[in-house]
Amino acid sequence: MNSSLIKPQTLKGFRDYLPEAMRSREHLMEVARRVYRSYGFAPIDTPALEYSEILLGKGGDESDKQLFRFTDQGDRDVAMRFDLTVPLARFTAQHLSELGTPFKRYHIGTVWRAEKPQKGRYREFVQCDFDTIGTTANTSDIETLFVIHDLMEQLGFERFTLRVNHRALLNGVLEQAGLADKSAGVLRALDKLPKIGRQSVAEEMTASVGTTADQAETVLRLAELSGSPQELLDQAGQLVQGNETGQLGVSRLNELLAACRKAELPSERIQIDLSIARGLDYYTGTVYETFLNDLPGIGSVCSGGRYDNLAGLFTQQKLPGVGASLGLDRLLAAMEELGLFETVPSGVPVFIPLFDKNHVADYLAVARRLRAAGFGVEVFPDDRALGKQLKYADRKGFTLALIAGDQEFSSGQWQIKHLATSTQETVADADLVATLKRLLA
Amino acid sequence: MNSSLIKPQTLKGFRDYLPEAMRSREHLMEVARRVYRSYGFAPIDTPALEYSEILLGKGGDESDKQLFRFTDQGDRDVAMRFDLTVPLARFTAQHLSELGTPFKRYHIGTVWRAEKPQKGRYREFVQCDFDTIGTTANTSDIETLFVIHDLMEQLGFERFTLRVNHRALLNGVLEQAGLADKSAGVLRALDKLPKIGRQSVAEEMTASVGTTADQAETVLRLAELSGSPQELLDQAGQLVQGNETGQLGVSRLNELLAACRKAELPSERIQIDLSIARGLDYYTGTVYETFLNDLPGIGSVCSGGRYDNLAGLFTQQKLPGVGASLGLDRLLAAMEELGLFETVPSGVPVFIPLFDKNHVADYLAVARRLRAAGFGVEVFPDDRALGKQLKYADRKGFTLALIAGDQEFSSGQWQIKHLATSTQETVADADLVATLKRLLA
Repeated sequence: MNSSLIKPQTLKGFRDYLPEAMRSREHLMEVARRVYRSYGFAPIDTPALEYSEILLGKGGDESDKQLFRFTDQGDRDVAMRFDLTVPLARFTAQHLSELGTPFKRYHIGTVWRAEKPQKGRYREFVQCDFDTIGTTANTSDIETLFVIHDLMEQLGFERFTLRVNHRALLNGVLEQAGLADKSAGVLRALDKLPKIGRQSVAEEMTASVGTTADQAETVLRLAELSGSPQELLDQAGQLVQGNETGQLGVSRLNELLAACRKAELPSERIQIDLSIARGLDYYTGTVYETFLNDLPGIGSVCSGGRYDNLAGLFTQQKLPGVGASLGLDRLLAAMEELGLFETVPSGVPVFIPLFDKNHVADYLAVARRLRAAGFGVEVFPDDRALGKQLKYADRKGFTLALIAGDQEFSSGQWQIKHLATSTQETVADADLVATLKRLLA
Repeated sequence: MNSSLIKPQTLKGFRDYLPEAMRSREHLMEVARRVYRSYGFAPIDTPALEYSEILLGKGGDESDKQLFRFTDQGDRDVAMRFDLTVPLARFTAQHLSELGTPFKRYHIGTVWRAEKPQKGRYREFVQCDFDTIGTTANTSDIETLFVIHDLMEQLGFERFTLRVNHRALLNGVLEQAGLADKSAGVLRALDKLPKIGRQSVAEEMTASVGTTADQAETVLRLAELSGSPQELLDQAGQLVQGNETGQLGVSRLNELLAACRKAELPSERIQIDLSIARGLDYYTGTVYETFLNDLPGIGSVCSGGRYDNLAGLFTQQKLPGVGASLGLDRLLAAMEELGLFETVPSGVPVFIPLFDKNHVADYLAVARRLRAAGFGVEVFPDDRALGKQLKYADRKGFTLALIAGDQEFSSGQWQIKHLATSTQETVADADLVATLKRLLA
């Protein structure tokens, strides 16, 4: 028989989530949903499969997207979604008249990329995005920052930094320096600043991008401004004096800082970082990155920004918006490393061993009564030795065991065993709910 | 430009979920998670893509499964999961040593079937399963019934009926009647009883299955027993007197009824229905179906049962289990029709219009303060006429609008507008949280 068994295995780059891992993921997604909703974002979902044309765009470069793409039974060229942004664009264009604007949505969904699997990178992962579409108001840019801040705080992080930049400010500096036509190359070089240092960046700008040494110096000076967020922004304001584009960026960032002060966001968590260039080929306004002070190496755990036109592939209506995406896997790894899951209750607190098989109905009935009072309760199904049942309880991390046999049932009492300390107390059935409330508070 | 636009559309058989529909779905899934967890079930997840061999089994009939199947970039024969049961079998076999038994899991996940789309049937849908694996104890069969009952109750249903049968009881009757070798055909005929009536079922049994008229009569008598669940079971007990298999079924159903009484499940919601034959080719023990008294036409909204061997394709270890699956789409349609979503709060309750654009930071700050106090609050981002903003609020279903301009800010007050009645009251900023608590209680 053995030879006819199929080997149970997952595909390369895919993984199962066992209960402990999945519980953490559900916790994170629940917190995200709660925070998104508290700001008036509403959930949507879109299909896993779409026409390939929609996911690729006209003339899209498939190798960029690493699509799982195939021909379906109806001979359609279809593919699995590789992000939630392209489906959002298609969705918004398709349903715009029903949705109205501003349209605030969140979307927690699985996406697939046929990338080469490597440590920490999978072919299937969950994205967790929120966006406000159909408005250019800075209110929404500021709110996006608040949402990211609250997400991080509600997940239990304390030491984190939100780094904010604005595309218009960078553009203003580039215009001032006569580099408007070289912005892509300049920003690409600037992006390497933390890695290769100012000397090499300056060389790349002059040698490859074709700036003068003075021009490179101007750009580097902007990236290297220091001080409090407000001081830094004031200095940047000097750099773009008289330049309309640059001043727009400064003024929007000023409003953002003022709102952060008024709403009393801890000031050490907000930084203006004019060296953020990454993502500026896509974003056109405010840009956000989020770093954990204790784990800077894992990179930004929540990034986003403002864009001019979400759905240009699908509709002539211009749809500006702003939003961000939570890096679920990075955050989970970080929460694990920082011990933030220790405060998340694992499973249910009350365990009822099947101490006497003649009392199965009694155990099931009391469990049901306790659930109605708000407690999670698990009844062990099998008639095994109590020690074995308690070992199971230990492994699953219950807090209390509720034990009763003939003697207890006839006297209307329960033995409550504290599983961490193995201490035991007796409680009358009538006091059971009140006692559990006290013990599990 | 127009000609170069891509038409925004979903694939046939697939659909988008707009905010209102998605909110209902999230509500249902949250209730399911809460109920499952309260019984000690833990979440898992498995990949959307698996080796085709795993999903099809050895010599599996692909046309049965309607797989979305293709060859991936690594030349692997892969397919999208068509249910959560086969992945559970693969998962359990693969991780058994880590999981231990009893293993209680729930799994809420999307599955795909390349079926011909028809009204109410899609190629992509969500399943919502729970199972207890690795035990033959009747405790778990009884608990499965409790879980289904609590799910229905927590979703807001009041008039529903759980119909229960046991495979061993049916087998006992068939053995008694000398029909053990004809059980498949007999059960297939019996399954048509509600549709074609007793006469035609008897004819099918004698003509096609090859029973005698007496044998057909015995089986039909069992299916037609009536009375209270206990009376019915007692009559069935007479029919299988002296037959060990049949008595086992009766005794397990007796335990189940006794536990329902002790746990005070409303007795009118539990029925023994010996005519349930559907699914008995897969299930080997207790079988469950759940019907809505007010919408019997939609069929069973939660079905399941006990099986002997979950993962025989993947491991030699025998894994008995019991579980059920919630029909998400059917339930949503029923909840819609019965008005059960009217009690679910739609989105957030408090709307803050951008009444004066100079106070954006004030609106954002008070919104943040109210969120910290537990209220959902949305700030309108754009500087538009108040009437337009309130129209947006109306469409999105807010309860209250919080309005303030220069005058209110200088006197430390807010106007609270009740959006349903358009009445208005003034409240001091210091009393805001207490007032909202009262108004939104």
